[in-house]
Amino acid sequence: MTSLGPLAGITIVDLTRVLAGPYCSMMLCDLGARVIKVERPGVGDDSRHIGPFIEEKSAYFISLNRGKESIALDLKAVEDRALFEGLLGHADILIENYRPGTMDKLGYSFDDLHARFPRLIYAQVSGFGDTGPLRERPAYDLVVQAMGGVMSLTGQPGGSPTRVGTSVGDLAAGMFACAGINAALFQREKTGTASKIDVSMLDSQVAILENAIARYQATGEIPTALGSRHPSITPFDSFETQDGNLVIAAGNDGLFRALCKCIGREELFTNPDYESNASRTANQAELKRTLEETLQTKATKAWLGILAEAKVPSGPIQNVAEVLGHPQTLARNMVVQVDEPGLENFCVAGNPIKISGVEDPSSRAAAPELDANREALIREFGL
Amino acid sequence: MTSLGPLAGITIVDLTRVLAGPYCSMMLCDLGARVIKVERPGVGDDSRHIGPFIEEKSAYFISLNRGKESIALDLKAVEDRALFEGLLGHADILIENYRPGTMDKLGYSFDDLHARFPRLIYAQVSGFGDTGPLRERPAYDLVVQAMGGVMSLTGQPGGSPTRVGTSVGDLAAGMFACAGINAALFQREKTGTASKIDVSMLDSQVAILENAIARYQATGEIPTALGSRHPSITPFDSFETQDGNLVIAAGNDGLFRALCKCIGREELFTNPDYESNASRTANQAELKRTLEETLQTKATKAWLGILAEAKVPSGPIQNVAEVLGHPQTLARNMVVQVDEPGLENFCVAGNPIKISGVEDPSSRAAAPELDANREALIREFGL
Repeated sequence: MTSLGPLAGITIVDLTRVLAGPYCSMMLCDLGARVIKVERPGVGDDSRHIGPFIEEKSAYFISLNRGKESIALDLKAVEDRALFEGLLGHADILIENYRPGTMDKLGYSFDDLHARFPRLIYAQVSGFGDTGPLRERPAYDLVVQAMGGVMSLTGQPGGSPTRVGTSVGDLAAGMFACAGINAALFQREKTGTASKIDVSMLDSQVAILENAIARYQATGEIPTALGSRHPSITPFDSFETQDGNLVIAAGNDGLFRALCKCIGREELFTNPDYESNASRTANQAELKRTLEETLQTKATKAWLGILAEAKVPSGPIQNVAEVLGHPQTLARNMVVQVDEPGLENFCVAGNPIKISGVEDPSSRAAAPELDANREALIREFGL
Repeated sequence: MTSLGPLAGITIVDLTRVLAGPYCSMMLCDLGARVIKVERPGVGDDSRHIGPFIEEKSAYFISLNRGKESIALDLKAVEDRALFEGLLGHADILIENYRPGTMDKLGYSFDDLHARFPRLIYAQVSGFGDTGPLRERPAYDLVVQAMGGVMSLTGQPGGSPTRVGTSVGDLAAGMFACAGINAALFQREKTGTASKIDVSMLDSQVAILENAIARYQATGEIPTALGSRHPSITPFDSFETQDGNLVIAAGNDGLFRALCKCIGREELFTNPDYESNASRTANQAELKRTLEETLQTKATKAWLGILAEAKVPSGPIQNVAEVLGHPQTLARNMVVQVDEPGLENFCVAGNPIKISGVEDPSSRAAAPELDANREALIREFGL
């Protein structure tokens, strides 16, 4: 075991604010990279001012920036520009999520920087991307969730389009950017060439539309929100029990038979209306009612035991407190503590990328105060 | 421009089926890797049998497996095992999404393979991970969306927990695995060490819970579904207009002022109830009603023009047909055609990771017929 992740030795200069970019650099930090956050003097990352707050610190900011360093620089001021460029001379990666065009005006376009720092990888995360008619439009998570189609697919049938309850508009872009940056690091190591990565939040939403694109083309019908059920696999839905609800995902004939058997409704498996996944999907509303007649006779916990025994994929619909306290979540070290001065037991999500031979620590260093690392960085790099 | 992505020259042996794994290897394919899909003889990937179908082919399968090769192998049969091991001898990465334990029984655990193929990176994508009490439980997207908490955060206030309308349970795991695999490739290139990546679908859901974890700890209240609004930023919601709806994300005081001004309601900006983001969030229901009084007086399209002019982040709630036809989506090459014999104009999502110097082709090679590449692979590798 080593404490070093695969990106040990890699230094990132991180100009990003709020969510998509900081989520990306947080992933890179968890993979072992050093992240130097460059913030606006006086104000810092906007997310320092977004609640919820604990002891006057933004819990939101901490959860995205634990383990990073901070230096406040005004990229329009001569002295700070010299410091910034000095940092770039020691960096492997620059990440920014300004509106496209902003870095060009500062004299820090990829072409400008590539000429001076030929090994610097440049990653840009923006709302709509570095090209196209909407290039300079501002975007937030909600805007790309709305424009990207996922809201039209989420919600109850016939109800309002619904935002996904976490910021997948930002997070998906951060995750794609992270994959792209790692690929660019590999490419640089192999070929010596450093490239620019351009990831947009809207593109990332298109990329996660998944089977909706295929369905639309195959049927000509515009996919709509279906509650919790799957469009083409049945039964694959949430169901009411005596005291609540649960989900069952019986994705093939074998699992459907196992489901019917374990709940004592074997006759459903031989019913011609339910003989194939296609017929079960065609008759899904009736099948759901029929299954619920039985499921409503016992409590959720009892059914979950029976279904698990029969190896039918199923589970409780857990709230955030339940998932954070779940034995599997804890066994996987997916809730880690932040060593934040003055805050005891503040936890954040752990690293979902587990790597052999790499330590998966159960805590993270604190999030930096604004400009906390200025003097140390100046000394270390002789700036 | 070169047609070669950063993973050009990398060969992946891909044992995965249906969604999380194939989505991961599709991303790797788009980054330039060669993906050899190993499938069960006779049946192949389960997703070959999941609708919707076009011309008797699964559009679902095509959309995830375009550009890959296929060989059908029975990993319990001596001859096929020899072929499989021969392929591994030429591979950089093995990806599998069996239930943990399955590969061990086949004699293909990471330790077994690492001893024989020390440069082979091993990536495992599973429902619950390779450790912990639920290790061997089967999972599908719906199960981890339910257990991972995102369903409890998605839906209308007071309504049913709602599945996200795309399979983020699978996709998030595929995306984290892709980032991890790229990091492992970089590490191998730099240090010579090949590692094992263990990504679980449930862990991946915890990792995208985002601010819900911070909110729960800061307030002690269990976060719930909030419709389309943001929990701590206001106004950040969908709103009714005269003929439909739109979203507005006015994430700070400056944007709120711009919003009030452009819709002719400047008095709202000076109203003490709405003077800060915190007070706007505390009074969000009343503010929404007030804004909708005005927004309901014009059509969506008219308001979108006014809001864009004022640089207030906003957008239409688009359905799948609208997003696929949007000028920005098209300008970004996010809808690409598959060269599928007998299917004209079948399109899939493009690559959201745009890389300088790398061609972003507007089409993809067809998805393979089951076992289509057996003879060619045997010849090429002298198996």
